[in-house]
Amino acid sequence: MPQSVLKDIQSEFMSWNNTGLNVMEMSHRSKNFQSILDNSRDSLRKLMQIPDNYHILFLQGGASMQNSMIPMSFLPEGSRASYLVTGVWGKKSYQAAKMVGEVDLTLDTSDSGYNFCPSLDDINVPNDVAYMHYTSNETIQGVTFQGTREWNVPVVCDMSSDIASKPIDVNHFDLIYAGAQKNMGPSGVTIVIIKDSFLQKAPEKTHPMFDYRLLVENGSMYNTPPTWGIYVCGKMVEWLLDLGGLPVIEKINQEKAAIIYESIDQSDGFYTGHAEKCSRSLMNITFNLPSEELSKRFIAEAGEKGFIDLKGHRSVGGCRTSIYNAFPKEGCVLLAEFMQDFRKKC
Amino acid sequence: MPQSVLKDIQSEFMSWNNTGLNVMEMSHRSKNFQSILDNSRDSLRKLMQIPDNYHILFLQGGASMQNSMIPMSFLPEGSRASYLVTGVWGKKSYQAAKMVGEVDLTLDTSDSGYNFCPSLDDINVPNDVAYMHYTSNETIQGVTFQGTREWNVPVVCDMSSDIASKPIDVNHFDLIYAGAQKNMGPSGVTIVIIKDSFLQKAPEKTHPMFDYRLLVENGSMYNTPPTWGIYVCGKMVEWLLDLGGLPVIEKINQEKAAIIYESIDQSDGFYTGHAEKCSRSLMNITFNLPSEELSKRFIAEAGEKGFIDLKGHRSVGGCRTSIYNAFPKEGCVLLAEFMQDFRKKC
Repeated sequence: MPQSVLKDIQSEFMSWNNTGLNVMEMSHRSKNFQSILDNSRDSLRKLMQIPDNYHILFLQGGASMQNSMIPMSFLPEGSRASYLVTGVWGKKSYQAAKMVGEVDLTLDTSDSGYNFCPSLDDINVPNDVAYMHYTSNETIQGVTFQGTREWNVPVVCDMSSDIASKPIDVNHFDLIYAGAQKNMGPSGVTIVIIKDSFLQKAPEKTHPMFDYRLLVENGSMYNTPPTWGIYVCGKMVEWLLDLGGLPVIEKINQEKAAIIYESIDQSDGFYTGHAEKCSRSLMNITFNLPSEELSKRFIAEAGEKGFIDLKGHRSVGGCRTSIYNAFPKEGCVLLAEFMQDFRKKC
Repeated sequence: MPQSVLKDIQSEFMSWNNTGLNVMEMSHRSKNFQSILDNSRDSLRKLMQIPDNYHILFLQGGASMQNSMIPMSFLPEGSRASYLVTGVWGKKSYQAAKMVGEVDLTLDTSDSGYNFCPSLDDINVPNDVAYMHYTSNETIQGVTFQGTREWNVPVVCDMSSDIASKPIDVNHFDLIYAGAQKNMGPSGVTIVIIKDSFLQKAPEKTHPMFDYRLLVENGSMYNTPPTWGIYVCGKMVEWLLDLGGLPVIEKINQEKAAIIYESIDQSDGFYTGHAEKCSRSLMNITFNLPSEELSKRFIAEAGEKGFIDLKGHRSVGGCRTSIYNAFPKEGCVLLAEFMQDFRKKC
């Protein structure tokens, strides 16, 4: 998280808005907390230019909970859904949906080790599916789809790892969901953006906590919401708005990622990127060294320099660095320098 | 929350344990966060004297999510459950379970306006139910069961509003659940304490986020947990341990409640308690004034003095004060004085 945001929160930690209360102490039914929730929601609407015919929810359970809740509500018996799987998270969404109903695996890039996302324009989804689902950015493989498009069916997208990292056209989606912990704040808050016409397809009555209609009717407060997380999300969104909004953070994210990808591309093959160039993620950069032994040494020495968590996910191996919105550009410069120094040494 | 706990958290807000990181910034897979989760869990085990054959989970979704998840896992087709309903929360649990399977309403005190909880010893539950369920303390009506007992069937208890407010014998329960926000920390964390032998009755495979086995196997980290909330829970538990544990906080809670109940009982009928004396809650005190108009005036004047949120729930009317663990005794003394002054004036 940005130091300025943390300092701001720390400064009002003992007394939010001169109330003498920490946000965690407020009743979620109080006017003070309602104003915090309203601000987080309205700021997010402004930041992402979310049209008025979309509802914004702050829920719990993370993307994993949505992976089950979505088919439970929108994949009724007799219908089927279409899933595009370009990495580990998409596969999890697909598997969760398969436990609920009929699911087509419309795209599966596992044969190539999930190292690319095809152009969305090249993908055909049958007209008769209840919805199609994809994961905009895969954190473990470091691959991302480019842009968005209109589709012939309702579109559900897991944007956990690239929400608010760049402008997108929300009109191209019927349901967007994201665990907030990567770009938008702390863990424990799930953002759901749902088009009203899609909401109307939800069943009239189901288990209360899985009932999107009930959750919308109650403005994210059917039960006690994660108040602290909603407050911090609002602070993160305000920080992005103050920066200049999503076009500005996109440019920063492009510059940050370019610094590290250049280190890979100009290493004469010492570092090799996992993702094909056209699918490279701006959030997660995955690469390998000439040997497993060198990778280990690289990770260990980087750790000594303060670059933590550079180990790739066990399913991919190699190295990975995650440079979400709040990761500073200087950190990318320093990591690139370290990569060059390490290469020269070996 | 106690000022000392808030100040402690504020002091390490910019750098937890000299890491330079706020807890919200840590990867939940990092050693640092694992140590925080381990500490919160182990401290809670110590505080509540939870035996080793019980698993402790930190989940999301609140008690409302458990209300559905529990019957989804433990009320298979062909079986039935027994519910005791002594207030609004128990009724919600009962209704959520009815959406899943067969449920007996073994006790229902709605005819009396939910103004008492019978002695647990007087309640008979059929031998053949999959489990029985009750709510130990009802916040809206301000009634509570006294003590605990052994049962002839598995026992599930919603302790959201009185967990860690007094010692209980965990051995009398198979599954305890509680939204943490009342006595244990912030909203967005749900504590689940589940006996291993009961866990073994859960289905082998179900939707991942509703799969208690999977959640236990992964030590509350099947997916990203609510890291900040787990950290704050740990701080609250440590505060209770430092106070002297549950026998000490129970004594404090008894003293606090007695101050206000005395104001009611010694008011010559000006204030009338909603709960029968034998079922009075130590956490939520509900009372009425001679008229609706006087109640309104009382709430308004109290608000001016800083006693906020004294309005009773709309389903009960009248007044309610919630004096959870962190509410200071001095606050109870001041409220009692205000009650006496108001009465003399009228």
